[in-house]
Amino acid sequence: MRETLSDIGEFGLIHRINNLLKQEGLFAEGTVFGIGDDSAAVQPKVGRELLITCDSVVEGQHFLSSYMNYYDVGRRAMTANISDIGAMGGQPLYALVSLGLKSDMNLHDVENMYRGFLSELNPFQAAVIGGNITQVKSATFIDITLIGEINKGQTLRRSTACAGDAILVTGFPGEATAGLELLLHSTQDNIPFDHPLIKAYVSPTHRAHEGQSIASSGLATAMIDTSDGLLADLAHICISSGVGAELNRKDLPISKNLKEAATSNKKDPYEMCTRDSDDYELIVTCAPENVKKIKNMISKISDVPITQIGTTSEEIEGFQWVFPDGTRQQFTPKGWDHFRTKESYNE
Amino acid sequence: MRETLSDIGEFGLIHRINNLLKQEGLFAEGTVFGIGDDSAAVQPKVGRELLITCDSVVEGQHFLSSYMNYYDVGRRAMTANISDIGAMGGQPLYALVSLGLKSDMNLHDVENMYRGFLSELNPFQAAVIGGNITQVKSATFIDITLIGEINKGQTLRRSTACAGDAILVTGFPGEATAGLELLLHSTQDNIPFDHPLIKAYVSPTHRAHEGQSIASSGLATAMIDTSDGLLADLAHICISSGVGAELNRKDLPISKNLKEAATSNKKDPYEMCTRDSDDYELIVTCAPENVKKIKNMISKISDVPITQIGTTSEEIEGFQWVFPDGTRQQFTPKGWDHFRTKESYNE
Repeated sequence: MRETLSDIGEFGLIHRINNLLKQEGLFAEGTVFGIGDDSAAVQPKVGRELLITCDSVVEGQHFLSSYMNYYDVGRRAMTANISDIGAMGGQPLYALVSLGLKSDMNLHDVENMYRGFLSELNPFQAAVIGGNITQVKSATFIDITLIGEINKGQTLRRSTACAGDAILVTGFPGEATAGLELLLHSTQDNIPFDHPLIKAYVSPTHRAHEGQSIASSGLATAMIDTSDGLLADLAHICISSGVGAELNRKDLPISKNLKEAATSNKKDPYEMCTRDSDDYELIVTCAPENVKKIKNMISKISDVPITQIGTTSEEIEGFQWVFPDGTRQQFTPKGWDHFRTKESYNE
Repeated sequence: MRETLSDIGEFGLIHRINNLLKQEGLFAEGTVFGIGDDSAAVQPKVGRELLITCDSVVEGQHFLSSYMNYYDVGRRAMTANISDIGAMGGQPLYALVSLGLKSDMNLHDVENMYRGFLSELNPFQAAVIGGNITQVKSATFIDITLIGEINKGQTLRRSTACAGDAILVTGFPGEATAGLELLLHSTQDNIPFDHPLIKAYVSPTHRAHEGQSIASSGLATAMIDTSDGLLADLAHICISSGVGAELNRKDLPISKNLKEAATSNKKDPYEMCTRDSDDYELIVTCAPENVKKIKNMISKISDVPITQIGTTSEEIEGFQWVFPDGTRQQFTPKGWDHFRTKESYNE
């Protein structure tokens, strides 16, 4: 029988995790000391700012433990945080992992979750430098605080877009939610894990490398990730920048896979692309003359497409769809909302 | 009827919390920007190190929502984190608050919880600079990451005690757990909230000011807070420093209130003082010649007593009680363990 957490106790678990991190994790530059004291300590480089974010996932709410292994759960949780640092242009460095775990959880699953964290952190030479573990009775939670660095003044924020900017988006937003739907309609012992949409949900990719390049180039005016959905996050940029947006329906990046899923489910692929999702793409705004430069720059470091989907407008013009025939339609973006119960998905 | 979280939605809640923080919170030095982007950004001072800790509380596990209001729940959660920064000698500065909340929770309770956070942060000119909110179905959780600053090289760690050091402790450890027992034996509509032991549990005090003074004086060799219990945390110092400990039973700081509670419950007050508890006192080790200096220094800034309870010894001698008649007894310290289910307390 596999060991559970109650077999080894909290201090035993911490010991095992420390060993795993020492053997499989890397040393993050600037760490003075990590796990083993009341706090960790870091020494930031002169001239660099620290970016700090936190994001949590809850079993049954953000991940389905019966459909996903804990390695992927760990990867996804860390990806969401890396995406937040990358969407400001930062380099991930230090993670603190706070876990609420059930006492009958397998030690093997906890270790796999840490391996998932490390698979995302190691490519950045970033490390888990601290955390907390507590017992929960029902839903497991994983709360990660991630700290990154960026050169002073290079940070790309939400509130700095200007009217007339081009609106760009990376990748194919909406694929993760389409993947989740496919997952929930599969029988548990017959899940097509190789399906690209299910992959997009189970092991999403952040765009932190692209975000770092865009921020350090100085070519963009604002940036955000799409963790609340394409329209909801574009609305965050627009509202905080005091601009409106004109979006060209025909330019939305709809992947072949998303189109097929829409056809077979009799859904609108444009709606699927723009709704709440669990993708971690980037929305970027920039002066129109910089679109080509950004596209060229990204094409040199990444295979990810970056597509212009519209233009920001004066605030008073609000949000408008522009259809292929030239007609226009006003709309109100509405994002993922964890407390409007009718809108949330659950296991 | 009072508003619940599902009435106003996640973005509505975030808006309300932002307003509360703007009106009632303070600006923490070094903040470049706080809430409102994918990450917050800070600019640490040159020559300072950052200390980072996180600690979470779960409803039914660390707090009893039927016995405590959310203002006190917020205070306690923040106190635990401030204690961790203070136990290294640091100055709390930036908090990130990650909440798992039920959709039927009163908005009023959430706002009161933030007021509890601020009541602990404001005295340090520290601020909530970010966070996350997600929905949970069962137990509410509060996970806080707290970042503090300290002059380079002044940090007091666990692993640096020497054999022959004096072992000091602040205040009266064990009072919080005695208070919890009293609380659980009260009827819910007749709780003696003015009782000093219940106060010790419901609104514990950190010793961060004392910890800062001790660290900056350079007089101590190691420091830790007692959040795992007096013996368990002393064991953390001893094990990581490679020393043993001789503790004088008669010198343990037993308050009048703890003695009375022990008498009326027919319990051993020494056991109550040293077991797992929710106090946030400090254990400090120092060279014997520095005991008086530390006591004098603390007496100038605080009413909190600081008591020598024993001496560290060579590692091979292990842990020993010294009784008033001079007899000795070996013991194995055992701390709070969240996953050994028999030892955990629950609602």
